[in-house]
Amino acid sequence: MTQANAPATPRSTLVITAHAGDFVWRAGGAVALAAARGERVTIACLTFGERGESAKAWREGRELAEIKEIRRDEAERAAATLGAEVRFFDAGDYPLTATAELTDQLVAVYRETQPDVVLTHPTEDPYNGDHPAANRMALQARILAQAIGYPGDGDIIGAPPVFYFEPHQPEMSGFRPEVLLDITEVWDTKRKAMECLGAQQHLWDYYTDLAVRRGVQLKRNAGPNLGLAHRTMAEAYMRPFPQIAKELA
Amino acid sequence: MTQANAPATPRSTLVITAHAGDFVWRAGGAVALAAARGERVTIACLTFGERGESAKAWREGRELAEIKEIRRDEAERAAATLGAEVRFFDAGDYPLTATAELTDQLVAVYRETQPDVVLTHPTEDPYNGDHPAANRMALQARILAQAIGYPGDGDIIGAPPVFYFEPHQPEMSGFRPEVLLDITEVWDTKRKAMECLGAQQHLWDYYTDLAVRRGVQLKRNAGPNLGLAHRTMAEAYMRPFPQIAKELA
Amino acid sequence: MTQANAPATPRSTLVITAHAGDFVWRAGGAVALAAARGERVTIACLTFGERGESAKAWREGRELAEIKEIRRDEAERAAATLGAEVRFFDAGDYPLTATAELTDQLVAVYRETQPDVVLTHPTEDPYNGDHPAANRMALQARILAQAIGYPGDGDIIGAPPVFYFEPHQPEMSGFRPEVLLDITEVWDTKRKAMECLGAQQHLWDYYTDLAVRRGVQLKRNAGPNLGLAHRTMAEAYMRPFPQIAKELA
Amino acid sequence: MTQANAPATPRSTLVITAHAGDFVWRAGGAVALAAARGERVTIACLTFGERGESAKAWREGRELAEIKEIRRDEAERAAATLGAEVRFFDAGDYPLTATAELTDQLVAVYRETQPDVVLTHPTEDPYNGDHPAANRMALQARILAQAIGYPGDGDIIGAPPVFYFEPHQPEMSGFRPEVLLDITEVWDTKRKAMECLGAQQHLWDYYTDLAVRRGVQLKRNAGPNLGLAHRTMAEAYMRPFPQIAKELA
Amino acid sequence: MTQANAPATPRSTLVITAHAGDFVWRAGGAVALAAARGERVTIACLTFGERGESAKAWREGRELAEIKEIRRDEAERAAATLGAEVRFFDAGDYPLTATAELTDQLVAVYRETQPDVVLTHPTEDPYNGDHPAANRMALQARILAQAIGYPGDGDIIGAPPVFYFEPHQPEMSGFRPEVLLDITEVWDTKRKAMECLGAQQHLWDYYTDLAVRRGVQLKRNAGPNLGLAHRTMAEAYMRPFPQIAKELA
Amino acid sequence: MTQANAPATPRSTLVITAHAGDFVWRAGGAVALAAARGERVTIACLTFGERGESAKAWREGRELAEIKEIRRDEAERAAATLGAEVRFFDAGDYPLTATAELTDQLVAVYRETQPDVVLTHPTEDPYNGDHPAANRMALQARILAQAIGYPGDGDIIGAPPVFYFEPHQPEMSGFRPEVLLDITEVWDTKRKAMECLGAQQHLWDYYTDLAVRRGVQLKRNAGPNLGLAHRTMAEAYMRPFPQIAKELA
Repeated sequence: MTQANAPATPRSTLVITAHAGDFVWRAGGAVALAAARGERVTIACLTFGERGESAKAWREGRELAEIKEIRRDEAERAAATLGAEVRFFDAGDYPLTATAELTDQLVAVYRETQPDVVLTHPTEDPYNGDHPAANRMALQARILAQAIGYPGDGDIIGAPPVFYFEPHQPEMSGFRPEVLLDITEVWDTKRKAMECLGAQQHLWDYYTDLAVRRGVQLKRNAGPNLGLAHRTMAEAYMRPFPQIAKELA
Repeated sequence: MTQANAPATPRSTLVITAHAGDFVWRAGGAVALAAARGERVTIACLTFGERGESAKAWREGRELAEIKEIRRDEAERAAATLGAEVRFFDAGDYPLTATAELTDQLVAVYRETQPDVVLTHPTEDPYNGDHPAANRMALQARILAQAIGYPGDGDIIGAPPVFYFEPHQPEMSGFRPEVLLDITEVWDTKRKAMECLGAQQHLWDYYTDLAVRRGVQLKRNAGPNLGLAHRTMAEAYMRPFPQIAKELA
Repeated sequence: MTQANAPATPRSTLVITAHAGDFVWRAGGAVALAAARGERVTIACLTFGERGESAKAWREGRELAEIKEIRRDEAERAAATLGAEVRFFDAGDYPLTATAELTDQLVAVYRETQPDVVLTHPTEDPYNGDHPAANRMALQARILAQAIGYPGDGDIIGAPPVFYFEPHQPEMSGFRPEVLLDITEVWDTKRKAMECLGAQQHLWDYYTDLAVRRGVQLKRNAGPNLGLAHRTMAEAYMRPFPQIAKELA
Repeated sequence: MTQANAPATPRSTLVITAHAGDFVWRAGGAVALAAARGERVTIACLTFGERGESAKAWREGRELAEIKEIRRDEAERAAATLGAEVRFFDAGDYPLTATAELTDQLVAVYRETQPDVVLTHPTEDPYNGDHPAANRMALQARILAQAIGYPGDGDIIGAPPVFYFEPHQPEMSGFRPEVLLDITEVWDTKRKAMECLGAQQHLWDYYTDLAVRRGVQLKRNAGPNLGLAHRTMAEAYMRPFPQIAKELA
Repeated sequence: MTQANAPATPRSTLVITAHAGDFVWRAGGAVALAAARGERVTIACLTFGERGESAKAWREGRELAEIKEIRRDEAERAAATLGAEVRFFDAGDYPLTATAELTDQLVAVYRETQPDVVLTHPTEDPYNGDHPAANRMALQARILAQAIGYPGDGDIIGAPPVFYFEPHQPEMSGFRPEVLLDITEVWDTKRKAMECLGAQQHLWDYYTDLAVRRGVQLKRNAGPNLGLAHRTMAEAYMRPFPQIAKELA
Repeated sequence: MTQANAPATPRSTLVITAHAGDFVWRAGGAVALAAARGERVTIACLTFGERGESAKAWREGRELAEIKEIRRDEAERAAATLGAEVRFFDAGDYPLTATAELTDQLVAVYRETQPDVVLTHPTEDPYNGDHPAANRMALQARILAQAIGYPGDGDIIGAPPVFYFEPHQPEMSGFRPEVLLDITEVWDTKRKAMECLGAQQHLWDYYTDLAVRRGVQLKRNAGPNLGLAHRTMAEAYMRPFPQIAKELA
């Protein structure tokens, strides 16, 4: 049977993040867009963010195990809202430490999910060392998963494009918007997913405002005749590897 | 009559270059691809490259006017081969000097051609100051052409994306391939256009080799299942402004 | 009479901007803070922003002279609200062209106002070439005004520190917040000054949101025990020259 | 009892360095200034510099333990001269290796000393890998110490500003003076502290010359009317995080 | 016996690479030139490239041990062709992990070979993490080998200049040609050495084309009257440390 | 007559500077070394530094013409001391303005002197805009002088290497020492030339200290067995173009 006749495999997106909430704030729109197109989205959460991103729960006097459960529950509901599957690696945060074992687990995920697109943190974040650690493992595992000589189950992968989502303090992290993604049509879904994260309620409006601002920039940078909505919402990304194109646009 | 019912205006590409040969070596593939899709391509050559890029003719003892005619003729044949229109501004090269008048002429071209895409030189070139001068005028005119308050004929333009084509010594000019354009299907056309430039025959093979190398990199950076040809030819570009996207890919 | 006994000269701030509205959106808080301390603030507007920043008026069919008057009136009311004096140079915008004459006029302003602090645009702005042009003249005039050999009235100046205020698209303009200025106590004044700029009403909320976000970052970067207000408003600046300090803090 | 009525806690400075001598050459002025203001200064020396910075002692045939004692004694006398407390971690130099244990010890120091200011090495040094290793642990521990979820004794800390002191070859280490600290009034104390370091006598004059040169630059960058001494001595620092300000100056 | 009367020790070059083939593609010309001058060249191959650079062998179904033998044999023949000695550390590739033990082994090689020149990979390579890992160990070992306090056999070394050879995708790895080495006279030797690497036959022409292109750039950057051959072949290098010179040329 | 039999033309160095004193402070050692080897050195001083670098004379109440004469006289005596010829273009400083006419005069100097080496200011200097202006003209004229199509007397030139000498505040001007030139053997000559510049006596010791410090760095970066003097004096340079080499060293 030739490839043309094969039942189509839906496109696959792999999101690799340090903490349970990252995929919602930073890439919820991209995840919802892919899911809305019927594509598969797999989120690899290396930790629950149990120590570094759960200050409210610690102040309330909760225990470590309980906090992990809260974060897991929130993230699962947010992922379901967006239409994605989330997997937890429970590698321990603050600090998240890069290890050969964890990287190897990511190689297995790459080979299993065969991603067409990869999303992860950018290389720098002076306010949170877990984010660069996740970036390094995500990039290294992507390369190892391409090598037929690297052991493990599953087929080797190609060279899927990588996108870095926006950190909390972009100018301090060397982040420059290289792609502005129009998420207007899935904005309500992203907002609902954010509202699953009860522990960080102060961020709901913060990331709504960010989407408005990136939307203004999208319109400012868009070519003519795009028929953009009055209120365009957007997410910003960087591309560490060259874009492959059939047409300049 | 609504926009949906209007007779479609073909997409428009504007290429702004310093010298007569630049659009062939550096962007001939992109030009041929657009033309092959039935789009309009307009090439604005600010000079003929009569002083700085015509050493052979000077060594043969030719006069300035004659050299300009040779370069004009070569460029017109190359443009016709690619399927584009070329216009000369005869602004004088070596050095090409940025002036308000020349910039204003470019504003008029922007407003007339209403480009969906703009191609020009990158910002740096330590081996040829005319290239950055062309870049500066191309970018400034694009901004002025957007302003309703800037006088002149024609409608204002939107914010068409800009692509910088590859300079002769990329690593010395801060050039990093951000877009790799697959030009395999129009490669023969680009080669024929290069062969119109008899004065620079030594560059035919040089730029063929470059297309091969950029093609190797394209394949190295491409995702899986793209069905790329065995010998992929490519051109490299930079994007000074963010890409606007409906999907990450 | 020794310096200690001299009647105190109030501190002086000089703001050099390209267009009539820039000092409000980008530095209104710093201006209001200085004025509230009883200091002198002089704003040098090189143009009215009559071509590039007045799209609404052009769309309403107004004439150039009329538009200049509108912008002048708005800017004067905004400056008065902030407690500053504004001067117009009417040098023509879009493009603002750096000239020796205009630079010389700025030297005269430096020598007359003897600034303790200088505020101006940063060096890059891919969306508006007038801003970098204003930056270049502001910096050059500051150096010339220091030289006893440069002709003109008034005493030479020292080396006042320079601050670059935030451009509209900071990440695209190489802008990194190096100073976060707490403007909470003058926020209402800045908002009132913004509301003087009727032609750009869509920016009122945009720059309010920006002040909130920079305030969040201020709190995130502040040391302990600062007693910050719940809702801190801030403006971001860069420092092109080293800070001179008696204490690290 | 409200904070306003509490007996004032003196300001606290924490200096984290790789080797025993670093705090003297690079930050002795800042340390002496803080001590002269009655503040607490704690110096965390991760190693004695016993292998990499003690060539003279090795050439004299001394043993490792003896060399450590020499360096400890020198550093303690220098710290006492400056008015600071020094603590040794004896983590082993050349190479100093970043470990979770050592980082955790630094978290404890942060929480105990509750620093208002942190001084450490910059991120790069192609001539000595121990310096960047100390930088990485100093920055990571500062973030961990802020998290209520990170275990350990003591209260969490705020976000104290960080200053990088000057490396031995600043231009090769990406060092740009962002703060010039006037240390004229404590210069004699710094010189006396340097003279405690008998093993590196050749550096006494080297770092005196550096202080003169940084002083010349301070005067060159200072605003008018500062009443600077004829011979101003200075130290240079970088600021990796934004300055928080109530006033631009 | 004074140094002047000592039998001359030939100059020594040390090449530190991640994989078995690197020294051929990237530095074969420099190696052959040194050998042709009668100098000693030692190549330290940290791994055989058995997992990451041997896709063909894996596809043929070979075993790990067998693949290592193939790569070892190829590299030994290539080294012999160039006139150099190659040593294998068998540290395991994909990923090559920096360890204190491996770095210590490199210190021993430095002290044994007393290199006058060191060649290694540059600091970045987004396509292959083993190359930066080799770079880090090569640089760290060079510093440790200079310290009399670092234990081990052999004399300490001086500060030999370091050259980074060209990565496979130079623009994506921050590589800028800072030295263009004329390898025309040993080109045939380099080509023969490349042809020893049967597993990567597709690279023979790729690296021949690269040598032509670097040769064109060499001629473009050469001063007058150098009497260069019509077809100059070259290799490009970076210098991370300053050049020491008796004359500007 | 073949080139081999022709009477040897001595090597030629061209130094292009903004002000009368620059070649002494910044490149006096390189000039003296070349002259000591019997080479020709031509110094093109675009201005006398009459407004920006002659504060003492202005404070003494001297007239413009008189100040120019003082500076000319000083520079001529310094050049004679170093063994070089100096030419003045009297283009006016503070600001030095780049013009087509002045650039054309420099083209003529290039073609007349046929330099083997070119020395000039680096591209940035936030403290003195004349230095970057001189840099731009020096680089542009070098390119124009290579073009057979650019009119004017004399033969076209090759592509002589360019070296940027050190600015007054290197870290603030993006200056990184890429070449450290050993000037120990001509140090006394450079000191004597500096002492010809009576108007800037405060700089004699400043630049002596700089030479000591660059000498320390030279020794720190030198390979083994160079037999360096105890007190090595050095000047630092940058190379904007790749070095052409026959050997890595």
